[in-house]
Amino acid sequence: MIGRKLQGLREELRERGLDGYLITGTDPHQSEYVPLRWRTREFISGFTGSAGTVIVTMDKALLWTDSRYWIQAGKELADTEFILMKDGEKGVPSVSEWLSGSGLRIGADGFALSLSEKRRLVESGVDIILTDDLLSPLWPDRPSVPCTPVREIGVEYAGLSASQKLDAVRSELRRKGADWTLISSLDDIAWLTNLRADDIPYNPVFVSYAFISQDKAILFVDSARFPEDILKGVSSLYSIASYDSIMNEGKGLFGGKGYISPERTSAFIASMMSSFITGRDITTDMKAMKNETELEGMRRAHVLDGVAYVRFLSRLDRNGKYTEIGLARMLEEERERLEGYEGPSFSPISGWKEHGAIVHYAPDEESDAAVEGNGLLVLDTGSQFSFGMTDITRTLLFGEATEEEKRDYTLVLKGHLALARAAFIEGTRGVQLDVLAKQFLWREGESFFHGTGHGVGCNLSVHEGPQRISSALIDVPLRPGMVISDEPGVYKEGRHGVRIENLVAVREERTTEFGTFYSFETLTLVPYERALLDISLLTEEEINQINCYHEVVRKSLSHYLDGEALRWLESATAPIRK
Amino acid sequence: MIGRKLQGLREELRERGLDGYLITGTDPHQSEYVPLRWRTREFISGFTGSAGTVIVTMDKALLWTDSRYWIQAGKELADTEFILMKDGEKGVPSVSEWLSGSGLRIGADGFALSLSEKRRLVESGVDIILTDDLLSPLWPDRPSVPCTPVREIGVEYAGLSASQKLDAVRSELRRKGADWTLISSLDDIAWLTNLRADDIPYNPVFVSYAFISQDKAILFVDSARFPEDILKGVSSLYSIASYDSIMNEGKGLFGGKGYISPERTSAFIASMMSSFITGRDITTDMKAMKNETELEGMRRAHVLDGVAYVRFLSRLDRNGKYTEIGLARMLEEERERLEGYEGPSFSPISGWKEHGAIVHYAPDEESDAAVEGNGLLVLDTGSQFSFGMTDITRTLLFGEATEEEKRDYTLVLKGHLALARAAFIEGTRGVQLDVLAKQFLWREGESFFHGTGHGVGCNLSVHEGPQRISSALIDVPLRPGMVISDEPGVYKEGRHGVRIENLVAVREERTTEFGTFYSFETLTLVPYERALLDISLLTEEEINQINCYHEVVRKSLSHYLDGEALRWLESATAPIRK
Repeated sequence: MIGRKLQGLREELRERGLDGYLITGTDPHQSEYVPLRWRTREFISGFTGSAGTVIVTMDKALLWTDSRYWIQAGKELADTEFILMKDGEKGVPSVSEWLSGSGLRIGADGFALSLSEKRRLVESGVDIILTDDLLSPLWPDRPSVPCTPVREIGVEYAGLSASQKLDAVRSELRRKGADWTLISSLDDIAWLTNLRADDIPYNPVFVSYAFISQDKAILFVDSARFPEDILKGVSSLYSIASYDSIMNEGKGLFGGKGYISPERTSAFIASMMSSFITGRDITTDMKAMKNETELEGMRRAHVLDGVAYVRFLSRLDRNGKYTEIGLARMLEEERERLEGYEGPSFSPISGWKEHGAIVHYAPDEESDAAVEGNGLLVLDTGSQFSFGMTDITRTLLFGEATEEEKRDYTLVLKGHLALARAAFIEGTRGVQLDVLAKQFLWREGESFFHGTGHGVGCNLSVHEGPQRISSALIDVPLRPGMVISDEPGVYKEGRHGVRIENLVAVREERTTEFGTFYSFETLTLVPYERALLDISLLTEEEINQINCYHEVVRKSLSHYLDGEALRWLESATAPIRK
Repeated sequence: MIGRKLQGLREELRERGLDGYLITGTDPHQSEYVPLRWRTREFISGFTGSAGTVIVTMDKALLWTDSRYWIQAGKELADTEFILMKDGEKGVPSVSEWLSGSGLRIGADGFALSLSEKRRLVESGVDIILTDDLLSPLWPDRPSVPCTPVREIGVEYAGLSASQKLDAVRSELRRKGADWTLISSLDDIAWLTNLRADDIPYNPVFVSYAFISQDKAILFVDSARFPEDILKGVSSLYSIASYDSIMNEGKGLFGGKGYISPERTSAFIASMMSSFITGRDITTDMKAMKNETELEGMRRAHVLDGVAYVRFLSRLDRNGKYTEIGLARMLEEERERLEGYEGPSFSPISGWKEHGAIVHYAPDEESDAAVEGNGLLVLDTGSQFSFGMTDITRTLLFGEATEEEKRDYTLVLKGHLALARAAFIEGTRGVQLDVLAKQFLWREGESFFHGTGHGVGCNLSVHEGPQRISSALIDVPLRPGMVISDEPGVYKEGRHGVRIENLVAVREERTTEFGTFYSFETLTLVPYERALLDISLLTEEEINQINCYHEVVRKSLSHYLDGEALRWLESATAPIRK
């Protein structure tokens, strides 16, 4: 199967005089989650992981992927000619290193390759040729471009009308001295237009481009997707052109000076533009700083989600018998009773004991472990609401905890609390706060290697930029209204994992002679796991912080609960003492 | 005077068909402290600050400088046609913004302009023309290139011989795949050759270039500067060519692929090279990671300096009458009694009350304040030893402290202690630890705006890269042997300043399943100011840390002290209690 596809691709390459083909495995919008149509990496190699790069030459087939996926890729590539290139391992060349030394003429789909990736390859001396998608002829049953119905978000949830947002983009374009912008990023377009659809699981976006100048606004999207009333509203702001017509109409539009994001714009589309300046999409920063209406929606989502979570926890028998998937379903059942609930915001992670030590573990029917006896469960789940979104991780104890498990939980919690209570001056970026979450682990010779915090969308994507809290040197200051996760962890291979995650929102605290200072408002409302606390490791300040948080949780949720769930909440949030 | 110079410069510009001239005010080696010969910014404008850029056009003379110098520059430029451009103030264009919009052909001395500055200007669209130094014809009494006698550092202090260092550079060149390197940075050359001189106050360097390939090593420096025995030793490793001959010989040497630092190499010299790769000078990283011999020298320097400092403190009458300069001299007198002492490592800062709030304040005869009554003195000084260097700030109380002064001192100390006790994983950069020093101030709506930590040389420059601890996103991990300052502060204009500074060295702590972890060894050995502690703000952990530090100070110094100084030390280091 893979062999035939490779043979077909090589024939295509030969016809075009290319020595090889680069497959990034993403879509023309550089989405993190990719519609089936553009899962090219999986089509050609059989590898189903979410990150990786394929290069096929006349005599080699290579897949680069990072350490998260080495085991999985090893299995999935086993019976193919693909060689696994362990990205990040010492002695393994990166994609551009491998290519730059090869002297090969390499083709790549000009839509799936971003302008910035193309630039990096060219700078590394790679001879890269933009092509159309060479996999199409080999893929007779290729899924079509997704085309789910488009729905509208009312201004009562969005806070700003689509018209106000369009005005804001135009005003920012003038400020930047640009004549037009083309937005390719799907969640940016969804935010801009106050429209949603279901083209990508968990990501309520619709495949499209948005072109905006001072006198034009065009949405490249199939108009058949719109209910009539919505089409009427949208048409009052935007001309609607078919999705594919960007290829023909683009050239006529891209005169004057444009403004584009090189990370989100495909190299082919950029090649139609004569003059542009680059930066993050204007909408990315606007979207990241939630307005007061969106923040109210996020708060409401967290109250509802907290209610469901507490009902779930109160039903749990910590000495009972469950499975990983079963527990995730129990929680999902509670969420499905909530008003405005649209479904999970991502595929749930439910990892028992050693599975909890696999950061990106998601149980399937084959791996689904029986949860019984003593151990820790890492449960990382989230809810999509029409007015907000949640993303929460709790580490739950079943049976009895070991001293090591309690110590690990408490060290992670200390970091989580230190980040949550941070105050910081205007201009501070996430990388500057990262140590707060890691300091206690580092002192014990432990750490974790995923991001500490990612931005979160409002009825959009659960991973939303540009802000991050991590060790990466990303020059994006945290600004009021930004929502971000606080999720340190620790993972002990073959034993257990711990992760604790709340969402927080940046808020302005005060302005003094020294500047303006911000702090975090915690949105998530679910008690921590009392039975896993090693009180001897906590300071008075930390104990007060836990007690204050639990008091807020109790006051926010108790009104919606009764019976066993209310009793459980009261006991789970009772003050702890040294 | 300034007027005549500007007139002369404009005539030069007219003759060469240039519209303006850019003066960076630095030397061909991009030194932080600049020999008199190259103080071009001061020559043309009269401005004596250490940072700033001058542009002279046919009808304008502009000086950009940052907020530290706005008051000083305002005074110094008052009677000239120079306009002060407040760098960093809202609405004030940067040098490149001003130039890029001007359409002017701008000349700049190709030796004083670094390659990276030139690249930045060109990227901003500035039409920049490299020239010789157009100020020379207008400067008949221009100081000559410095030519102080060169001396040698024995391997007993350097830890590695000049021959071993040369081998190490050659081995690193091979690893980088480069044929040769040209080192322009003066402290790098001094470190590489184990040679010192006094070309720049407080910086024991000699003006020179070093060229190294696998079969050649050339030192461009006046050979008359060497005593005969030293010349013999140096000549066994390096050919000696005159300093100026780099201009003629360069072209012949710069074949093949070079390796240079674009920040330290002048644009003119780079223009003689056909092919090169760029990065930090190879010696910069080697120099930053002190070897065990250098660390031993640094420790010894800090014991001696601690002895002098304690003698000074024990002589002080905190209700007596002094002056800022007088106090700095008292401390200097004690240091002059030390074995191996070569002088101050920088111009001392001694700031009483409101002077302490001026970060870069250095008293002169005019400003020298009487120190009497109640108040804080910020005393930031350092010692150059033949085997090491110190840099220490203590904030001293005279008379009685206000509650605010005690609070400020204690908040600064809490940050200083948190940074000192940090543990961190391999790969951590200074920007990731910066918050540890600022967190307590930020929580109170306060901050400081200088770096938290700078690298320190060993019998070299008191500011030494590449590592830093600050809010700047500098991608330089802290590595074992690096010495860096820990110096948070807080400055209240018109009232008082607080700064507390120790030097620390990065040391390897342990390796676990998670990676390798580092911590800091504190080098500085002088008690903190007990009378300024607000004990109620300190945690048990902080009190223990202070007591442990004071115990180390006492044990390290008491052997060298007797009488009043010993009694003072014992009482200054007695345990404090909550």
